[in-house]
Amino acid sequence: MSVRVGILGATGAVGQRFIQLLDDHPTFDLAAVTASSESAGETYREAAKWRVDTPIPADVAGMEVAETTPAGIAGDDVDLLFSSLPSGVAAEVEPAFLEEGYVVSSNSSNDRMAADVPLTIPEINPDHLDLIEVQRDERGWDGALVKNPNCSTITMVPTLAAIDEFGLESVRVSTLQAVSGAGYSGVTSMEIIDNAIPHIGGEEEKMETESRKLLGEFDGAEVALHDADVAASCNRIPTLDGHLENVFAEFADDPSPADLREAMRSFEGVGDLPSSPDQLIKVFGDDEPERPQPRLDRTYADGMGIVAGGVQSTDAGAKYNCLAHNTIRGAAGASLLNGELLVEEGYV
Amino acid sequence: MSVRVGILGATGAVGQRFIQLLDDHPTFDLAAVTASSESAGETYREAAKWRVDTPIPADVAGMEVAETTPAGIAGDDVDLLFSSLPSGVAAEVEPAFLEEGYVVSSNSSNDRMAADVPLTIPEINPDHLDLIEVQRDERGWDGALVKNPNCSTITMVPTLAAIDEFGLESVRVSTLQAVSGAGYSGVTSMEIIDNAIPHIGGEEEKMETESRKLLGEFDGAEVALHDADVAASCNRIPTLDGHLENVFAEFADDPSPADLREAMRSFEGVGDLPSSPDQLIKVFGDDEPERPQPRLDRTYADGMGIVAGGVQSTDAGAKYNCLAHNTIRGAAGASLLNGELLVEEGYV
Amino acid sequence: MSVRVGILGATGAVGQRFIQLLDDHPTFDLAAVTASSESAGETYREAAKWRVDTPIPADVAGMEVAETTPAGIAGDDVDLLFSSLPSGVAAEVEPAFLEEGYVVSSNSSNDRMAADVPLTIPEINPDHLDLIEVQRDERGWDGALVKNPNCSTITMVPTLAAIDEFGLESVRVSTLQAVSGAGYSGVTSMEIIDNAIPHIGGEEEKMETESRKLLGEFDGAEVALHDADVAASCNRIPTLDGHLENVFAEFADDPSPADLREAMRSFEGVGDLPSSPDQLIKVFGDDEPERPQPRLDRTYADGMGIVAGGVQSTDAGAKYNCLAHNTIRGAAGASLLNGELLVEEGYV
Amino acid sequence: MSVRVGILGATGAVGQRFIQLLDDHPTFDLAAVTASSESAGETYREAAKWRVDTPIPADVAGMEVAETTPAGIAGDDVDLLFSSLPSGVAAEVEPAFLEEGYVVSSNSSNDRMAADVPLTIPEINPDHLDLIEVQRDERGWDGALVKNPNCSTITMVPTLAAIDEFGLESVRVSTLQAVSGAGYSGVTSMEIIDNAIPHIGGEEEKMETESRKLLGEFDGAEVALHDADVAASCNRIPTLDGHLENVFAEFADDPSPADLREAMRSFEGVGDLPSSPDQLIKVFGDDEPERPQPRLDRTYADGMGIVAGGVQSTDAGAKYNCLAHNTIRGAAGASLLNGELLVEEGYV
Repeated sequence: MSVRVGILGATGAVGQRFIQLLDDHPTFDLAAVTASSESAGETYREAAKWRVDTPIPADVAGMEVAETTPAGIAGDDVDLLFSSLPSGVAAEVEPAFLEEGYVVSSNSSNDRMAADVPLTIPEINPDHLDLIEVQRDERGWDGALVKNPNCSTITMVPTLAAIDEFGLESVRVSTLQAVSGAGYSGVTSMEIIDNAIPHIGGEEEKMETESRKLLGEFDGAEVALHDADVAASCNRIPTLDGHLENVFAEFADDPSPADLREAMRSFEGVGDLPSSPDQLIKVFGDDEPERPQPRLDRTYADGMGIVAGGVQSTDAGAKYNCLAHNTIRGAAGASLLNGELLVEEGYV
Repeated sequence: MSVRVGILGATGAVGQRFIQLLDDHPTFDLAAVTASSESAGETYREAAKWRVDTPIPADVAGMEVAETTPAGIAGDDVDLLFSSLPSGVAAEVEPAFLEEGYVVSSNSSNDRMAADVPLTIPEINPDHLDLIEVQRDERGWDGALVKNPNCSTITMVPTLAAIDEFGLESVRVSTLQAVSGAGYSGVTSMEIIDNAIPHIGGEEEKMETESRKLLGEFDGAEVALHDADVAASCNRIPTLDGHLENVFAEFADDPSPADLREAMRSFEGVGDLPSSPDQLIKVFGDDEPERPQPRLDRTYADGMGIVAGGVQSTDAGAKYNCLAHNTIRGAAGASLLNGELLVEEGYV
Repeated sequence: MSVRVGILGATGAVGQRFIQLLDDHPTFDLAAVTASSESAGETYREAAKWRVDTPIPADVAGMEVAETTPAGIAGDDVDLLFSSLPSGVAAEVEPAFLEEGYVVSSNSSNDRMAADVPLTIPEINPDHLDLIEVQRDERGWDGALVKNPNCSTITMVPTLAAIDEFGLESVRVSTLQAVSGAGYSGVTSMEIIDNAIPHIGGEEEKMETESRKLLGEFDGAEVALHDADVAASCNRIPTLDGHLENVFAEFADDPSPADLREAMRSFEGVGDLPSSPDQLIKVFGDDEPERPQPRLDRTYADGMGIVAGGVQSTDAGAKYNCLAHNTIRGAAGASLLNGELLVEEGYV
Repeated sequence: MSVRVGILGATGAVGQRFIQLLDDHPTFDLAAVTASSESAGETYREAAKWRVDTPIPADVAGMEVAETTPAGIAGDDVDLLFSSLPSGVAAEVEPAFLEEGYVVSSNSSNDRMAADVPLTIPEINPDHLDLIEVQRDERGWDGALVKNPNCSTITMVPTLAAIDEFGLESVRVSTLQAVSGAGYSGVTSMEIIDNAIPHIGGEEEKMETESRKLLGEFDGAEVALHDADVAASCNRIPTLDGHLENVFAEFADDPSPADLREAMRSFEGVGDLPSSPDQLIKVFGDDEPERPQPRLDRTYADGMGIVAGGVQSTDAGAKYNCLAHNTIRGAAGASLLNGELLVEEGYV
């Protein structure tokens, strides 16, 4: 049972990851790739400056790039669209596809906090997907729009979901983020060699709000934000891939480090989506306090897993570190997994 | 009025910084340099693998290296010793000098939390120096031992001292530390290129305990630790010099970001020690949220200043970033300044 | 006797270096700064995204930025212009200033190999400056245009000039070039972290042609290119500043490494221009084969010197390494020095 | 037909690569691992600080580490030994194994240039293997010792072998070498961040001599060194893996860049050893002059291939760039391949 899919914004850094991840996907067949009007009509090979570490799949290289409009892909018989457009473009273009009835799994940051847009990580809050019913009522769309969170948010939230059973009340998180999170040209070499930058525009707000929506309760009509107090400081450092984060958490209960490790290790996500890891969160014990590390751990579960470690008690709660691959689990892989959930739940 | 000084452990990374900082010092004259017994008898140029970015001062290059024992420097008529020995060696060797009556300003980590050893930053807690009286009573030494804190502690504590007037209750801090903090060979290139390491042995405990001693009250007999709850996560990143730290703080009062910036900017330290900056803490406003950065800001005030920025409110308090040069203000410069305080206060 | 100078393209990376180097210059007073029309009318502080490691000089920060046209600086009474425009822009704009009679010392790469344009390094070929007479005859300009070579060329040519006395016949050179040579945004972090790029567009041709013009004979009418065979391979590596180069040279004579070192060390350039180092070429002996290194040696002579080392014989000649600061000696400093030569020789 | 193999020096960086490459090898079964006497008796997991990017194979983790002596592995029934001992240790220890009749494929640098020791790259000079007969005559060994060249040599020599048909006369080569070539702790982070080092002890001599032996003619009694004039300059840069090299070559004939590219692409090595790539040398055309790059190309053919590019004519010959993975093709993989050749040729 294959599903024909398209990628909106297929030539950019995240678009290239989509193509890499879709190669040999068990159920998705790539049937359309779009880009800006200047590239429309070119082959994908001509239009994309390919930078991923595996070659362009042969069948994609020769595909004709369509313009990013419903008309552009009208003849492609596509069932599901992945969007990796810049958020400004996405805010203008995504509604056009939704009005035409397309189902869109989007990595773009616009509308993530909109009340009628599901923001989902399939292993964490798959039930939020039914916000689509609210969305359809409100917007009159035949299609459906689902968003995945920001790369720095998605690194942390699975660990928080795993330990929320202890009554999560407060989160302080500092991030050490890789340059790929800013796109291919987002961070210049002169900015970051022998340096770190303690600010990423909008990132702290995304972590502080998206995490509370992801962990919130959905009652069939709306999502109530989780009431934990979340504060984030975000830093860019000279690593290529993999966001590392230091979390300080406080709880109503008083879990031990062993409790927290066990809760993370045994955390069960959604059943059996093709791209979800067997064990979502790998946890290093206190005999390996120097892990996780970006270069050594970012490819855990083909980049779709979360790796945690350094779990220790503090006077007020606990601290630990977590890590994920920011352009796989943190971007294209997150959208892809939401696409798999949309199929599983019958929206495609 | 010059003071004859010596350096215990003069050939290592911190020892070299001492020599660099002592060159042209207004009151200190370098009269003795010591190293391990293998190097004793060599000239300093022969014994040291010089790696600082200015040449070996001409008068130091030819100095004969003494063994690190009181006998080794017996003839040098030294009034004040700076110690940058490895802590294990220092724990064995420093007492011998103290028994002989030497005044020692030590960067080594041993005994920093001992009840009768002053741990001081001259601009923060110069009054703690009088613990020396307690120390002399307890140990029967004629000399005096004063310690400076760890490089990651000293980066943060001046900012905390400045804002303690608002009733500091809780501190969560994440560090992004430069490789030089581990010494010349402490971090291999294979460990850190395209990577970060979320663990530095013993560092978190140092930050959590030393900061509370530095901010504590001294009643003439003992130092009561500050009662703020401090928790730290320490990371090594691929920068050469300059520790950057993200601080989350909570207060009894409710200071605004403007209040906090003003308190830091106007913080007045000790009077007029030669190596203390005119303005201890430089603070970037919210129009430059991406500062401080290690490469751009580590040389503020010749590496003896603290640079802060990114001050923002959180639901529970505030967050901000701070930075200092870890091998100047965080090591050799810190000991040097304690030496200047010892002179000012009449202990030398 | 001060000279009023202007900078064409003052807000870019090289323009900022000009401003840094002109601060406290003994004879040059900065009287005009230009940029593209969008920035005209703004203060320099507003127009420039300042990234040099010293603050904007106070008197420059408030200067009004003019448009890069003769009309833009008509009222500024400027005697000498430094140009750091992109070469495409320079090719269009520089002639307009020359027709108006301005003397222009330009770092832009256009016209460097034009037969009537002096390409000079003051310590190497100051006599070439008199090509200005030919230029004025040919072009009918009242002004004068002088160019300095490319940053990779200027790193090598002083060493070649010093050893040309042995009958230089062949040069093979490989470069390890810093990212700043490509401008602030020229090399992205994703391109260069954990990587090297064995190609810099046009760079090899510049080294192969400019070096032969610089070393060529000027007979009062034209410059005959030096007849050495020069071939270059250029690489970008993850360093911030400082180009390191491996040279393989062959000679008519058979100089020893000692001969070559001595020739470099004793090389005397032009007399006493303010920005020329006392010793142009510093040479490491064979006891320090691992020098020069970019981070340790790029600031020799405030970045205006050349550092060489690793001189050894080969079967066919010799090999050695050389290094210079690419944005000081290799760009802004090179133009500045040509400006000093223009004054010394009476062209200003 | 499986072969039982052992690794001398199995816990070091190259030893770990051996273990990684032997996992799932079609014919080799790992039966013994040795280390220094301090580690003897421990399990491999205990003895090794594992740093390779795949987990320790389960069957190796529990193996008992033997001392590096013939007695240590006497009971293991091993047919072939791989040696990755430090060269000083190897010089002492390897003869003991050879006297006992072991066949040793060694990556250690001792004895590479000995007249009776074959230095081989199976695709280049497999016939040199018969030097073993000379070796047995001279030394009275029952065993056999074969060496592979240095990592910087092996990166270049396949390309030279491919183009030697044009009458190779002169080679100038500059290397940009990764830090892993110096072993795990060989290059400190303080040495190499924002830096390059134009010297690697002994490396230039190795390239200059080993390459001429590899390309030399073997007449059944001795290897005549190739008469090309080879000169090398070796640099360390901040890359993790992958040596990049710039080659300038001169020929008796006058091959075009197209001739050279074709010769490299069509170069046929030895028949069908399991670990030899289908195409030994991948060559980028002049539409991709910025390749090969270490991070993008080092894993070509699972790290066992050579990648070339940037082929251009010079006045005197040609220049091009080449690259190989220094710890796979340049070390463990090279020895492994020699082991496969030893089996193929009946020496095991």
